[in-house]
Amino acid sequence: MNDSVEAAPLVVPDFDTYPVSNQLQRAETIEHGLELVWDDGLSHRVPTIWLREFSPDASTFHTVTREQRIALTDIPRDLSIARVAIADDGFLEVDWMPENIHSRYHPGWLRSAVADPNDPMESLPDRKLWSLPVTQQPNWLDGAAVYNGDSDALTIWLETLLIDGVGLLDGLPANREVIPAIVERIGPIRPSNFGNVFEVESLPSANSNAYTALPLKVHSDLATREYIPGMQFLFCLENEATGGESLLVDGFAAAQKLKSESAEFFEILATLPVPFGTKDREFDHRYCAPVLEHNAAGELSSVRHTYWLRSPMSGNFETLTTFYAAYRRFQEICDDPENQLRFRLQPGQLMGFDNRRVLHGRDAFDPESGRRLLRGCYGEREEVESRLRILYRAQRAQKNIQA
Amino acid sequence: MNDSVEAAPLVVPDFDTYPVSNQLQRAETIEHGLELVWDDGLSHRVPTIWLREFSPDASTFHTVTREQRIALTDIPRDLSIARVAIADDGFLEVDWMPENIHSRYHPGWLRSAVADPNDPMESLPDRKLWSLPVTQQPNWLDGAAVYNGDSDALTIWLETLLIDGVGLLDGLPANREVIPAIVERIGPIRPSNFGNVFEVESLPSANSNAYTALPLKVHSDLATREYIPGMQFLFCLENEATGGESLLVDGFAAAQKLKSESAEFFEILATLPVPFGTKDREFDHRYCAPVLEHNAAGELSSVRHTYWLRSPMSGNFETLTTFYAAYRRFQEICDDPENQLRFRLQPGQLMGFDNRRVLHGRDAFDPESGRRLLRGCYGEREEVESRLRILYRAQRAQKNIQA
Repeated sequence: MNDSVEAAPLVVPDFDTYPVSNQLQRAETIEHGLELVWDDGLSHRVPTIWLREFSPDASTFHTVTREQRIALTDIPRDLSIARVAIADDGFLEVDWMPENIHSRYHPGWLRSAVADPNDPMESLPDRKLWSLPVTQQPNWLDGAAVYNGDSDALTIWLETLLIDGVGLLDGLPANREVIPAIVERIGPIRPSNFGNVFEVESLPSANSNAYTALPLKVHSDLATREYIPGMQFLFCLENEATGGESLLVDGFAAAQKLKSESAEFFEILATLPVPFGTKDREFDHRYCAPVLEHNAAGELSSVRHTYWLRSPMSGNFETLTTFYAAYRRFQEICDDPENQLRFRLQPGQLMGFDNRRVLHGRDAFDPESGRRLLRGCYGEREEVESRLRILYRAQRAQKNIQA
Repeated sequence: MNDSVEAAPLVVPDFDTYPVSNQLQRAETIEHGLELVWDDGLSHRVPTIWLREFSPDASTFHTVTREQRIALTDIPRDLSIARVAIADDGFLEVDWMPENIHSRYHPGWLRSAVADPNDPMESLPDRKLWSLPVTQQPNWLDGAAVYNGDSDALTIWLETLLIDGVGLLDGLPANREVIPAIVERIGPIRPSNFGNVFEVESLPSANSNAYTALPLKVHSDLATREYIPGMQFLFCLENEATGGESLLVDGFAAAQKLKSESAEFFEILATLPVPFGTKDREFDHRYCAPVLEHNAAGELSSVRHTYWLRSPMSGNFETLTTFYAAYRRFQEICDDPENQLRFRLQPGQLMGFDNRRVLHGRDAFDPESGRRLLRGCYGEREEVESRLRILYRAQRAQKNIQA
C-alpha cells in the first residue's frame, strides 16, 4: 500500500465514542461464528466473517479515513478463528487464520454493534404529529443564537424540525446572505431548476406560480422529482404588501385524519400513481407516484402535492372518479383554517419545514401595495439528521472527557 | 387577481407541442363524465372534473407559468356540462355550469392526455443491460461537440447514459472548468459532503478512501443517502501515475446473473436492509436499505454498494450467514475482470455513468510515480431525462414548423 500517512492506531472503526455500559463475560467459538455472553445476561451469536470484516486493525480499516480497506472478497473463504479471549481491559481479542491478523474489539462498540438495534446513542427524536384542529401558536426560536454559532440553539432548532416538521427562527439580521449561511450550518443546499437560493416575489416573467402574486393553497414543492426535497427554508427580507400571510399544515396529520374518515380514500391516495410534470421552457421533469407516498417499511414518508404541477391521468373511469373524490377531501382537510398555522412573516424571520411532511402556502397579496420579498432554498431531512448526530456525538465525547 | 402581465391565450396547458394524429368523432355526456370516440375507433370515458381541471383557459391556467391557478377545491361540487361540441377545427368545446367558463381542448393534447399512457412523444430510450462477459470496447463520443453546444452530440451522450448507463467523452480541453460547465448543460450539480465539484487525488488528510492511493473495487458512491445520486461524472486532468486504471461494471446485469445462479441469494440482497454510515468528523449520514433496491413497481432501481461505508448489522445468525454468502457472490461477479470495462483515463476524457446502476472502481496507483488528478461531481438521472425531453421537444417543435 502507498499510504503516506500513518495515523494513531484505531480503537473503534469510526469517529464515534462508545461508552462501556456492559462487560463481556464469555466468548466461545461455534460453527461459523462466535457466541458472546454479556454480564447482564444478554447473549447472541455473530458470524465469523461479520467479526472479521469489522476488525479495527490498520490492514482492515484505513487509519485516516476510518473506512474499510477491504471488501468481502478480500477475506479468505477458509477464514477461521485461531484464538479468542477477553482481555483484562474488557476488549474481545481474536487471532485469525489463515491471515496473520490480531484483532481487538472495544466492548462499548461491540455491544452497540450487535446487541442494540435501538441504541439510544443512535436515536434521533421521534416525529410528533400535530393534533387537529390546531390550537398552538407559532413557536419562534432564537435565530440570532443559531446564526452566531450556538450549538445548543442549533440542536434545539434541528430537533424541532424533526419533531414538529417546522422550525421557526426569529431575530435574524434581514440581509440576503443569512439564508445560505444558516442552512449551510446544517449541510449542503439542494439546488433545483430555480437555482441554489431562489427569491420569491411577484415577477412579470414568472416560471412558477410562486413568483406571481397568486394565492397558493398549501402544497409541497417539487413534486415532479423522484426524491422530493426533505427540507425547505424561507427567509423574509421585506413584507410591506397587503395580504401574503403564510400558512402551514401537517400533511401527515391530515393524512391520518383522512384515514380515520375513509379507509378507501386513504388507500387510493396511498397507492394510485399520480403524474406530475415541471412546466418550464428549460426543464421537463416528470414523476408518477402516489400523493401519500410510503417507504419500504410501510410508513408514510412524503406528501406529493404541488397541485399546479399535476399532469393529466389516464386510467379507468371509476378509479379516477374515486381518486378525485379522495383527493378533494384530502385538500379540504389541508385547506381548513382550523388545521393550519397562519402568521405573517416579518423581516428577519425564517421558517424551516419538512417539505415532505408539512405543506405550506400563502394568501394572495397585492404587489402594488408594497414589496414582499422572501429568499428560499431546499435541503434534505438526512442533512438535518446528520448534523444532529454530529452535535450529539460532540456531547457524548464531552461527557466522556468529564467522566 | 393581481397578475400584471397577460400572455397570449393558451392552446395547450403546458409548453409542449402536440401533433394531431387523430380526430375526435363524437363526444357525449354520461353520468359524471364524457365519452369520447376517435376516428380510429378508440373510445374512452373521462370524469367531468378531470376535463374541467385541465381547461386551458386563463382563469384555470396561468398564461405565463402555464401552471394550474386552481386546486380541486376551487371547482364547484355541483359542476356540470352545459354544452359539448366538436368544433370545425377539431377542438373539443365545453361550456361549464354553474361557472361561466368556456373551454377548448386541442385534439392532439387531448388524445395524448387520455388515451396513450405509452405516448411515443414521452418515451425516453430504454435501458439495455450489458451482456456478460463483456466483449465491447469503451465507446468514446465526441466531447468537443458536446462542450461546444452541439444539440445532436448532447442528445447522443444523454441517450447513451440512459441506455448503457455509461457515456464516455473524449477530446475535451483538460482544464478544471470543463466539468462543471458540461454537467450544468444537463442540469444542476448535486452537492454532497465532498462539495459541489470534488478533486480525486491522493491526500494525506483524506476524508474518504477515494482520496488515497488505495485500490477501489467497483462500488456506487454515497450509499449512506436515502436517494443515491443517479449520475456521476469523473473528468481526467492528469494521469501520470503508475496504476490507477478505471473499472466499470453493469450492476444491474450482475444482479441478473446472480438471480440466474441463485434465487435465494438474489432475494436476500433485494430484501434485507443493510446499514451504511458516512465516516467523517463533520457528517454522519446513515441509511439502511437492501443492496439491490427495487422501486414501488418492483423494478431494480439502485445498487447500494459503497462497501467501505457499511456499518455492522445486527440480526439473526442464520440470516446474516446467508446474507454474507450472497453478498460475497455478488461482489465476485462484479469484481470478475471478464464482466468489467477497464481502461486508462487520459487527460481531457470524461466518464459519465449511472451511479445507481453502473459500479465504478480503480486499481491502486503509485502517487510517487506521477500525479493522478480527476475532478468529479454528482447529478441525477432525472436531470438527464428532463434535458433529453427538452431536446426532443425542440425537435418536435422544429418538425411542426417544417410540416
